[in-house]
Amino acid sequence: MARAARRARRQGKDRGKVPQLPWTRVDNPYPPLEPLSSDQVEAIHLASLDILENLGIEVMGEDVQALFLAAGAEVDSTTGIVRLDRGLVDRALSTAPSSFTLTPRNPARAITVGGNRINFGFVSGAPNVHDRIKGRRAGNMRDFKTLMKFAQSFDCVHFMGNQVAPPIELPPNNRHLDTYRAALTLTDKIVSGVPIGGGRIRDLIEMTAIVRGLSVDALAGDPTVLGNININSPRKLDQEMAHGAMMLARHNQATIVTPFTLMGAMTPVTMAAALAQQNAEALLGITLTQLVRPGAPVVYGAFTSNVDMRSGAPTFGTPENAKANLAGAQLARRYGLPHRTSACNASNTVDAQAAYETEMALTGAVFGHGNLIYHAVGWLEGGLVASFEKIILDVELVQHMMGLLSPIDTSREALALDAIAETPPGGHFFGSPHTMARYETAFYQPLLSDWRNSQAWEEAGGENATERATALWQQVLADYSEPAMEPDRLEALDAFIRTRRQEIGDGDP
Amino acid sequence: MARAARRARRQGKDRGKVPQLPWTRVDNPYPPLEPLSSDQVEAIHLASLDILENLGIEVMGEDVQALFLAAGAEVDSTTGIVRLDRGLVDRALSTAPSSFTLTPRNPARAITVGGNRINFGFVSGAPNVHDRIKGRRAGNMRDFKTLMKFAQSFDCVHFMGNQVAPPIELPPNNRHLDTYRAALTLTDKIVSGVPIGGGRIRDLIEMTAIVRGLSVDALAGDPTVLGNININSPRKLDQEMAHGAMMLARHNQATIVTPFTLMGAMTPVTMAAALAQQNAEALLGITLTQLVRPGAPVVYGAFTSNVDMRSGAPTFGTPENAKANLAGAQLARRYGLPHRTSACNASNTVDAQAAYETEMALTGAVFGHGNLIYHAVGWLEGGLVASFEKIILDVELVQHMMGLLSPIDTSREALALDAIAETPPGGHFFGSPHTMARYETAFYQPLLSDWRNSQAWEEAGGENATERATALWQQVLADYSEPAMEPDRLEALDAFIRTRRQEIGDGDP
Repeated sequence: MARAARRARRQGKDRGKVPQLPWTRVDNPYPPLEPLSSDQVEAIHLASLDILENLGIEVMGEDVQALFLAAGAEVDSTTGIVRLDRGLVDRALSTAPSSFTLTPRNPARAITVGGNRINFGFVSGAPNVHDRIKGRRAGNMRDFKTLMKFAQSFDCVHFMGNQVAPPIELPPNNRHLDTYRAALTLTDKIVSGVPIGGGRIRDLIEMTAIVRGLSVDALAGDPTVLGNININSPRKLDQEMAHGAMMLARHNQATIVTPFTLMGAMTPVTMAAALAQQNAEALLGITLTQLVRPGAPVVYGAFTSNVDMRSGAPTFGTPENAKANLAGAQLARRYGLPHRTSACNASNTVDAQAAYETEMALTGAVFGHGNLIYHAVGWLEGGLVASFEKIILDVELVQHMMGLLSPIDTSREALALDAIAETPPGGHFFGSPHTMARYETAFYQPLLSDWRNSQAWEEAGGENATERATALWQQVLADYSEPAMEPDRLEALDAFIRTRRQEIGDGDP
Repeated sequence: MARAARRARRQGKDRGKVPQLPWTRVDNPYPPLEPLSSDQVEAIHLASLDILENLGIEVMGEDVQALFLAAGAEVDSTTGIVRLDRGLVDRALSTAPSSFTLTPRNPARAITVGGNRINFGFVSGAPNVHDRIKGRRAGNMRDFKTLMKFAQSFDCVHFMGNQVAPPIELPPNNRHLDTYRAALTLTDKIVSGVPIGGGRIRDLIEMTAIVRGLSVDALAGDPTVLGNININSPRKLDQEMAHGAMMLARHNQATIVTPFTLMGAMTPVTMAAALAQQNAEALLGITLTQLVRPGAPVVYGAFTSNVDMRSGAPTFGTPENAKANLAGAQLARRYGLPHRTSACNASNTVDAQAAYETEMALTGAVFGHGNLIYHAVGWLEGGLVASFEKIILDVELVQHMMGLLSPIDTSREALALDAIAETPPGGHFFGSPHTMARYETAFYQPLLSDWRNSQAWEEAGGENATERATALWQQVLADYSEPAMEPDRLEALDAFIRTRRQEIGDGDP
């Protein structure tokens, strides 16, 4: 650790002893990689309109159906099938913003969602937790807090997705109050709401307003809250998800609409079909937000991957998943919408498979210009586990990507012809003044990579990357410091939580 | 293994029980990722001309110097410094082909080098071998043969680089005859020569001519042999390397010129300087080939990575290495030359680090349009080791990339609106006729990935990817079959080897 500490000091880090890149905006300077021609994008677009106009999508909840009906959609009240014509979709798309900014309680941690801006997200939704010391266990409050500390500690984590590792020892109808409190106090970054019904979203809106010192109305003009709803693919929007989205839109907070389109299971096995279905489902959810509040921030989400056709198990980080990440971004651009994608894997352990599957998905996500890359840090086992060692591994992967996206300096000083002239043929540059002035910051300093020679590495215990990650996350936790919050806001937050817990009682939030 | 065997049978593979993609041409359909603007490319180009014209490069060997002198270069006979003016470089570049084809004894395994064609290479140059059963050992003939069997068995390996794991039990002055024989009989793919002096290259040219049933003269019209020379960076071309390149060019075989430019050690720490120096050194070597034989196939090679500034150890698969891979390809395109790059890593073991470093370098290599991607399969420990388990891992990484580069079918059948219509909202597509007709070949079938659920995986032994790789390479070796060679050619080959061994005696080849 002494070496890591020296490194951290050298880099002038204001936090912790584990070296890392500072918080920064990440822009992708490269044109997006596009597997689909514009004709293919149009074919998928037209197929999705065919689905929306002719097949329709089942929408649960009479109030949700009523909203579509009032906007001119065709609603079958028996089956709940809603059919949208292209005019209605076009009107909704015309009001959805192409870019927006979300500001958390620390304004320095605001994120912009759109264009070529890349934001990396923390693992979300995983029901279990794993580390090499305590093994695999169900979500619980202690681990939830630990996860929030990781999310706060790593500056390459730009936002947090839906509740990770839900604390199952707490009552399901009000534990969102506890997880929100933990997230809002232990971190100062963007926190996502749990969009299962409108109540849990409304609670986060109130709580973020409190910690930002704003009214709920003011928050609508300066949004903070992010919520991801899934379409229950194929072609079904559940009432709870719809209500979550509607509450977000009503308050001008950001909704991500993500169809759950695993090829071979929830869509046909062919990617074109999956993309057409994904597109239809996403457009329905996006339309819903704009019917509630034209101009509300909304994101075209995509989660298209495939399943193992032998077992039906979901797979991630496959070539299909990476390519779908690229294609999904093309569709989002077709509509001028920000794009949410993911960097997932299906490995059971933090090994080479976990690394290459995550990296493959990340490649599709980053080079497609995904604006919100969910699950980029910490996801394991097809999403069943939030892994501490995987957090360390993924920070390394994400920081590598950030390095790859950074520019090359070709100034006179960087071209360094003098330094080349001063070093004789067959010599070396280790002691050159040009090197000495720059060597400490010249290269990316890895978190996890071990570059000792084989003998030194063996003598030090011969730990592989996964084993090394354990000491690193322990160090990060030891160095964690809670971001200060104004005492009156913390008091108001706790008062809100007490009141709401009473209000909710045994009922629904 | 039963499952793997079933999978292989399902895919109708003509070889072995481990599933793999068939031999195929790989074209990158995406525009190359380019970190340098055209102005930046020009700045690097001009800086490299400054190096060539004013600083010069030390060239060893009077005959090599004489060649440059005769072409109009300025040669300092005391220091061996050769200075090339831009006119001389331009003339050389005007005769170098932008693309060429190399044909081995099996014409179906020919490779084209240039354009957006990607060829993946087997690990080369590593002095040691490692597998999880026998551990780490120095190169030897038995392992060399095993490595050739792997290179032949995996269809995503398009070519073999310089001698891997040299058999140290054999005499250094004639063991190239043994390794060539093994490579030419155990594989039917492109084999590289050992360009340490001209003799070893001449031997491979003769031997490939024999196994192709051609004269050496005819081989010049239909080349087979590939040889990579390194510039001894900074700014030094050793005589042995120059003689290797000259022999290749004389016979119209392909030379790759690769400066050994590790930033911070053999170049300044700044990437622009490394690229300028790399460019100057590459252009000198490329010029040499064209002075010997205008039009001889030649490849712009690049190996720019950084070193660990704490230890001086070379590092690979860093963000800098990946970005240099992209930038190197831009420079090669600037001159209309094919490009050689690499997919390396510096891990001491086949772990997550080995995976993410290799994948990072591979990302730069593939998305930059590297035409020859050296070390893509099997390289470990900064190049000190050829690893059997890493071969399995890398085949998976390379095949993932091949999947990512493959097109998306958006035909009417692929859009599958009928299948979507037939499946009710909230249903699934597992039993759909559209699925049943396609599920066996719909998705990439991984070699190494394990997608069982956690419990099933644990019960089966809970092996990580590296552990699983051991059984896979064992299976591949069990399934290997030697590609047949005409008996008279084999006889001629052995006669040649006997003669040459006598000729060489205790001397230089």
